[in-house]
Amino acid sequence: MSSSYGKNIRVTIFGQSHSPAIGVTIDGLPAGFTIDQAGLRAFLLRRAPGRGEHTTSRREPDEPEFISGLVGETTCGSPVTAIIRNTDARPSDYDTIADIPRPSHADYSAYMKYGESRDARGGGAFSGRMTAPLCVAGGICLQLLKNDGLRIAAHILQIGGVRDRPFDRDDFSEKDFDALAEAEFPVLDADAGIRMLSAIKEARRAGDSLGGIVECVATGVPAGIGDPPFDGMENRLASIIFGIPAVKGVEFGNGFAAAGLRGSENNDAFVIRDGAVRTRTNRHGGILGGVSSGMPLMIRAAFKPTPSISIEQDSVSLSRMEEARLTIPGRHDPCVVPRAVPCVEAAAAIAICDALTEHKSHV
Amino acid sequence: MSSSYGKNIRVTIFGQSHSPAIGVTIDGLPAGFTIDQAGLRAFLLRRAPGRGEHTTSRREPDEPEFISGLVGETTCGSPVTAIIRNTDARPSDYDTIADIPRPSHADYSAYMKYGESRDARGGGAFSGRMTAPLCVAGGICLQLLKNDGLRIAAHILQIGGVRDRPFDRDDFSEKDFDALAEAEFPVLDADAGIRMLSAIKEARRAGDSLGGIVECVATGVPAGIGDPPFDGMENRLASIIFGIPAVKGVEFGNGFAAAGLRGSENNDAFVIRDGAVRTRTNRHGGILGGVSSGMPLMIRAAFKPTPSISIEQDSVSLSRMEEARLTIPGRHDPCVVPRAVPCVEAAAAIAICDALTEHKSHV
Amino acid sequence: MSSSYGKNIRVTIFGQSHSPAIGVTIDGLPAGFTIDQAGLRAFLLRRAPGRGEHTTSRREPDEPEFISGLVGETTCGSPVTAIIRNTDARPSDYDTIADIPRPSHADYSAYMKYGESRDARGGGAFSGRMTAPLCVAGGICLQLLKNDGLRIAAHILQIGGVRDRPFDRDDFSEKDFDALAEAEFPVLDADAGIRMLSAIKEARRAGDSLGGIVECVATGVPAGIGDPPFDGMENRLASIIFGIPAVKGVEFGNGFAAAGLRGSENNDAFVIRDGAVRTRTNRHGGILGGVSSGMPLMIRAAFKPTPSISIEQDSVSLSRMEEARLTIPGRHDPCVVPRAVPCVEAAAAIAICDALTEHKSHV
Amino acid sequence: MSSSYGKNIRVTIFGQSHSPAIGVTIDGLPAGFTIDQAGLRAFLLRRAPGRGEHTTSRREPDEPEFISGLVGETTCGSPVTAIIRNTDARPSDYDTIADIPRPSHADYSAYMKYGESRDARGGGAFSGRMTAPLCVAGGICLQLLKNDGLRIAAHILQIGGVRDRPFDRDDFSEKDFDALAEAEFPVLDADAGIRMLSAIKEARRAGDSLGGIVECVATGVPAGIGDPPFDGMENRLASIIFGIPAVKGVEFGNGFAAAGLRGSENNDAFVIRDGAVRTRTNRHGGILGGVSSGMPLMIRAAFKPTPSISIEQDSVSLSRMEEARLTIPGRHDPCVVPRAVPCVEAAAAIAICDALTEHKSHV
Repeated sequence: MSSSYGKNIRVTIFGQSHSPAIGVTIDGLPAGFTIDQAGLRAFLLRRAPGRGEHTTSRREPDEPEFISGLVGETTCGSPVTAIIRNTDARPSDYDTIADIPRPSHADYSAYMKYGESRDARGGGAFSGRMTAPLCVAGGICLQLLKNDGLRIAAHILQIGGVRDRPFDRDDFSEKDFDALAEAEFPVLDADAGIRMLSAIKEARRAGDSLGGIVECVATGVPAGIGDPPFDGMENRLASIIFGIPAVKGVEFGNGFAAAGLRGSENNDAFVIRDGAVRTRTNRHGGILGGVSSGMPLMIRAAFKPTPSISIEQDSVSLSRMEEARLTIPGRHDPCVVPRAVPCVEAAAAIAICDALTEHKSHV
Repeated sequence: MSSSYGKNIRVTIFGQSHSPAIGVTIDGLPAGFTIDQAGLRAFLLRRAPGRGEHTTSRREPDEPEFISGLVGETTCGSPVTAIIRNTDARPSDYDTIADIPRPSHADYSAYMKYGESRDARGGGAFSGRMTAPLCVAGGICLQLLKNDGLRIAAHILQIGGVRDRPFDRDDFSEKDFDALAEAEFPVLDADAGIRMLSAIKEARRAGDSLGGIVECVATGVPAGIGDPPFDGMENRLASIIFGIPAVKGVEFGNGFAAAGLRGSENNDAFVIRDGAVRTRTNRHGGILGGVSSGMPLMIRAAFKPTPSISIEQDSVSLSRMEEARLTIPGRHDPCVVPRAVPCVEAAAAIAICDALTEHKSHV
Repeated sequence: MSSSYGKNIRVTIFGQSHSPAIGVTIDGLPAGFTIDQAGLRAFLLRRAPGRGEHTTSRREPDEPEFISGLVGETTCGSPVTAIIRNTDARPSDYDTIADIPRPSHADYSAYMKYGESRDARGGGAFSGRMTAPLCVAGGICLQLLKNDGLRIAAHILQIGGVRDRPFDRDDFSEKDFDALAEAEFPVLDADAGIRMLSAIKEARRAGDSLGGIVECVATGVPAGIGDPPFDGMENRLASIIFGIPAVKGVEFGNGFAAAGLRGSENNDAFVIRDGAVRTRTNRHGGILGGVSSGMPLMIRAAFKPTPSISIEQDSVSLSRMEEARLTIPGRHDPCVVPRAVPCVEAAAAIAICDALTEHKSHV
Repeated sequence: MSSSYGKNIRVTIFGQSHSPAIGVTIDGLPAGFTIDQAGLRAFLLRRAPGRGEHTTSRREPDEPEFISGLVGETTCGSPVTAIIRNTDARPSDYDTIADIPRPSHADYSAYMKYGESRDARGGGAFSGRMTAPLCVAGGICLQLLKNDGLRIAAHILQIGGVRDRPFDRDDFSEKDFDALAEAEFPVLDADAGIRMLSAIKEARRAGDSLGGIVECVATGVPAGIGDPPFDGMENRLASIIFGIPAVKGVEFGNGFAAAGLRGSENNDAFVIRDGAVRTRTNRHGGILGGVSSGMPLMIRAAFKPTPSISIEQDSVSLSRMEEARLTIPGRHDPCVVPRAVPCVEAAAAIAICDALTEHKSHV
């Protein structure tokens, strides 16, 4: 695998769904930063399963134990490592899939990559559970960025056929960020949220699942960060966001919609606001030529519907090399999108923190 | 900047629109590979400006001179470097934009990153011209991959409001690939192509520009390549494709459309075909859990409309810190999408070549 | 810090002398490799403190707990993480040095790097204790290499003024390797070993310490591995060996002695032996132009004397910025060289394993 | 090959002895730095062949042409690429060695790595000529560092049996650095220099060659740079210095001599001088625990004698797989050490510049 991300802030994820523990090492954090552990736990809780009717019933405390890099709660300059024990594993649930890969899961491709030795239990290292250590790292980066005046928030833009109001402003306030961070179901339009929850409930009843889109904004990002052509802000953000299981598309600003527009409809005029250069609109999503423009970064990530559905599906038996029917046993989310919201924030925070750290080295 | 991409195949791009030359160094190519220079030139010609009415009239031969890494036409194991002289530069065209940044270009963000010292001539290193060395590297990788039975093709899926037929099969033949590579205007539906050309002509007349989408397929990719979570095939491909100027979105398989689907609609059943495991549909775009499944990779990249338009626009004077009107002088494409087609192929080829090389190291 | 080493085999070390745990993540190991845990424990025991009179009396079990990457004892392709709990820490021993840096330790430079937040307890991440996770990773690599027919051994070439016989052959047998691995005090000349032990005992009595040299050989390394100019075998090996605390010099083959020789005295004639190209002598230490020649690799690492001595020394008070006398309290080795022997083997194994893995990717 | 070095300052070398050109790309230089081209040429002249009786008679102007990254003479933030044309190549000189590898050259290991396709002409990419682009990059870094108050100088410490006086102070002045930089034969003790020149002349007459040691000092390096365990100053410096052909050993401070000392003899007491913490002696060579201490860095690199000698030697015919006698035709240095002096300075400058840039990112 390739479990490390970043250059000046370097995050290494390890663990599998049913290994003794999962965890993360973060190298490059500045010394002397005191982690707000309560704040971090609150952030992790947003990703944790079992919060509502719309998620799996597996419950794990997801309490990270920091085993290195801190003196008390403060970073000392050494790599910070946190581990989370896997306590609620029930590997027997996963016996069948070792032979009959679940459609659209990584079971088959993992088998082709690692052979019989792969960890088939619960998806191994391909499990959504691996977003927990990502969120530990991202949660710390969010705190670091906040100290520098950068804020990141995300909401559910779409689930199935229901769409929330998109972010449409460039003057996000602290209050907006806090509200989203505290929301049990983070949407901008409460009514859309209710309809999303209905859709999820309906999909669960049908033994089916739903995809969706998470939209993320980062404010306070200074103009000039990002290192094109290959470590521009878009490359960096996409590179880590595609590390979240189930993401199949990433776009910035107008994104795919820009393909259908004219230059005169997609360009953002420069204006002077309060003595500073800004753009009148933010169709570029805060990134021009891979470099931040000083406007809020606008990021969207598309999640496919959870491939684990209760409906019987066509698959194959790898041992017998013949077609087979599969009914996936066990618990699973009908829709991962609500829990993916903090994951996208975490991923964005890590990417921005890394870019910002590199930026400082050249100033 | 961050001008290198890849791990086992490492590509480093250098140059600016108006520097004496631009070029690329490719480290990690196997020794003993003979470059088909005529084939490479033909490939580069697909990206070259001035091929049709729909592109800028700037004409450069784009003849790469190989200054290292070859003995005759054959790689010797040392890094291969090719340079392309910039002969047709007219820097005087770009005097204004040093002070008044062009909306939605990198002029302003480059200024914020590099200050007065940035190369403002022709967009400097942010110029679309930098895709020429990318295509040199990609063109070589395409030849290498072809030797291993991998083929890559791309077409214009959309320009403005006109849409081509999408790739919809998993049995692409040599003929299909050759046809697309030879097409002057690569679309699957000739009629859509004609309407796209009309749309471009119309946009040019209006002094405006158009965005679009390039769709790319890679066949023959063995199952099991890609290194999740952070160097999975999606991360790798997105990471390099976002290095092509004007790309604002990247998706795989069903991509953003998957967000609106149910699992039962988006999952790909496994089947046995000719004694091998395949999927009945390819909504996953050949990538599951970041690892190739053996099905064709399906990649789409969204390009924003060329920000250079003839219509007068609002901007600011950086020296006077006041708002200013800007009419962009000089030549520019009303639509870069046709020329972007080989760029996406090149980027995909480099990413796949790198992943495949790493894969070999673990077998 | 920069706690990761390697490209295709990537080792990340974490922890401090007195953090809850120390550990290592190894990414890139092939799937399906069964770790010989008993063999690994035996290897780690060679590095462990408290084995003889010549070492510190601190005793830690150094039992690695594998928390990820294995199914049973077998690698599954996910990164392998092992942690070792710090149980025998007595931070109070280290109160003084937080203010008065120990001469020739990293106390002062760590303070200048990380400020007041550094972990001053027991040297923090600069502690020799951090070689334990290095040896976990190296011990696994040694097992992997042995499977491929590569063997690595090391001995104490020098301690203080006493010198062992150097390696002088190119036909090391299994027996030689096993004998060195099992020796309590690994030297080639038993008599030199006895005199070294006397010298250590004498230094301990004097409250002083001794430096030394470890010599390491690697056989079975195929010709052609190593990636010059910057990842040649010498760069790779030096790069990791300088990661072992107290190493101040690294040389290959004749090393520094070559500086005093003529070409006719230092060149190695090529000969044919058993149908294969070999060199008659091995003054080049198995590496030519950064690439392995097929002859055994010959590596020497110089260790400075343990800076912790009981003799009172001159230092400064950082808080008062005035000169101060320091008597270092607590336990410490008079000579780390015996325990450094497996560390050099481990470092060499990791470097060679990484180079070999990269090599495979280009074949 | 692995032709790139560094993280925040990234240097990529390309070319072979007889390719059309050789060159270097430097990514990460700050924008707005004006290269002193005359100063750079003067620096390159110190490495150039043909300066005295003690070097080869091959003469090349080694004039770098900057093809990217500059506007005028000033960096613009894009990667800086300079190429040097190979004009004085006489490949016919090297016909024999394609079949009969020169003892202790890279001919054989390159053949085993790259096979028949390797570039056998003049040693290909293994040629000492590749230090020219290294010196271009290093020469620029030296200028950058000088702006920050860091100076680097080196001298010939030893050639064959003759030894210069070592650096022994910590108060190097501008004058000392300038004197060494301007010296035709850089030694501290002029008399030793005369004896070295005699030794070289004598070796040439005998058709033989000589090795030696270059000693390098860097002053003004702030305390706290370097990223242990794997990117500490020693790792970084060794990693690049071993990229200079013929280097077989690298040591810092007392280096290998420390192995024979006691702690009380090798430790450096901390003292207060002019209100700052210093060490009374500098046996640690300015690096403690991989991190700079604020004292001058002291680096020594051992060079083996030039393997090209006129004396007939034993080798093998690769095509016939039988032993063969070889007389190496053509020109060659009897001693590369004088020309290696600026190469070591260049390598050190690049490593320090990279470490310093990374350091800034964490302040």
